[in-house]
Amino acid sequence: MSSKQRVRPGGRSARVQASVHTAVRELMEERGREALTVPLVAQRAGVTPSTIYRRWGNLQELLSDVAVERLRPDTEPEDHGDLRSDLTAWAEQFLDEMTSASGRAYVRDALLGDPDGSNAGQCSAYAAEQIDVILARATDREENTPGVETVMDRIVAPMMYRILFRPAGLDAAYARRLVTELLGLRGKGDE
Amino acid sequence: MSSKQRVRPGGRSARVQASVHTAVRELMEERGREALTVPLVAQRAGVTPSTIYRRWGNLQELLSDVAVERLRPDTEPEDHGDLRSDLTAWAEQFLDEMTSASGRAYVRDALLGDPDGSNAGQCSAYAAEQIDVILARATDREENTPGVETVMDRIVAPMMYRILFRPAGLDAAYARRLVTELLGLRGKGDE
Repeated sequence: MSSKQRVRPGGRSARVQASVHTAVRELMEERGREALTVPLVAQRAGVTPSTIYRRWGNLQELLSDVAVERLRPDTEPEDHGDLRSDLTAWAEQFLDEMTSASGRAYVRDALLGDPDGSNAGQCSAYAAEQIDVILARATDREENTPGVETVMDRIVAPMMYRILFRPAGLDAAYARRLVTELLGLRGKGDE
Repeated sequence: MSSKQRVRPGGRSARVQASVHTAVRELMEERGREALTVPLVAQRAGVTPSTIYRRWGNLQELLSDVAVERLRPDTEPEDHGDLRSDLTAWAEQFLDEMTSASGRAYVRDALLGDPDGSNAGQCSAYAAEQIDVILARATDREENTPGVETVMDRIVAPMMYRILFRPAGLDAAYARRLVTELLGLRGKGDE
């Protein structure tokens, strides 16, 4: 079971979560991911190991929760004035972040300690929310706008698939090509 | 043991691998994945636990190797006489296999115990090889044929991305739509 169901908004539960997440991030930076253990994290966070086991089950599920938190976008996508520019900038930045050493580790962690798939689903929801913002702006500008699931299939999915399974040749030019191949077919003078 | 077996390259090594893989598959069926341990697998395979640790490092890496072996296609894609039919049949079958409980578990195992990404790369290579066969047939028929990387981006990537991150609505109609959206754009009377 994921921790989410047990997390109360605010209160002690939220404080425990914050201090444990912080402890994981600090220890990862100081000692590297391989050195992490539940007792070490508990000591740094000022909680007992059993608090962590009760709440997260094991280290892998804790790392998955921390990874999803790190993958949450902290700003809205930039507004460059048209759909093609917005999607291109977003895709380039997404690929850049996800192909970094820490991005790859977070994606991997998010997937691994996630028996019910809720954390993976949350990662995907973050991307879809960002794309929704971009598409809503394009609709407001009366641009010809694809649906969010189409953008997930045509831009997000190929990038994430290649990051996980087929990483050769992943660069900004690839991200741009995916956008061009999607929007080039939709006319409205975007070429 | 015959002398022939002893001089064959990889003789003992290949036998150890086969017996350990078989032990994993049998124990998974009998007791479920959660019950597996290295000592249990070693006992069933007739090897010492240290043989397994030496060769695979840990249980997760062993499960990753077994998963990749299970994900290897054992036949060529069926030949239905034209590219659209071949790709549709292949995509439907691929999605069906990968969304099954065992398919999802194998994909997950393949990714998890794979620190250098070679097993994930092998999974992707299996799909690309199958698609290569389909595309080569289409080229021989003088059909208008996309490149293999385009098919990976447009058909394999969306299916695998959704299996891992966004599983709602994954069915045969989705697989067919991906093929139609790819080939519908390429003319040659395929509609």
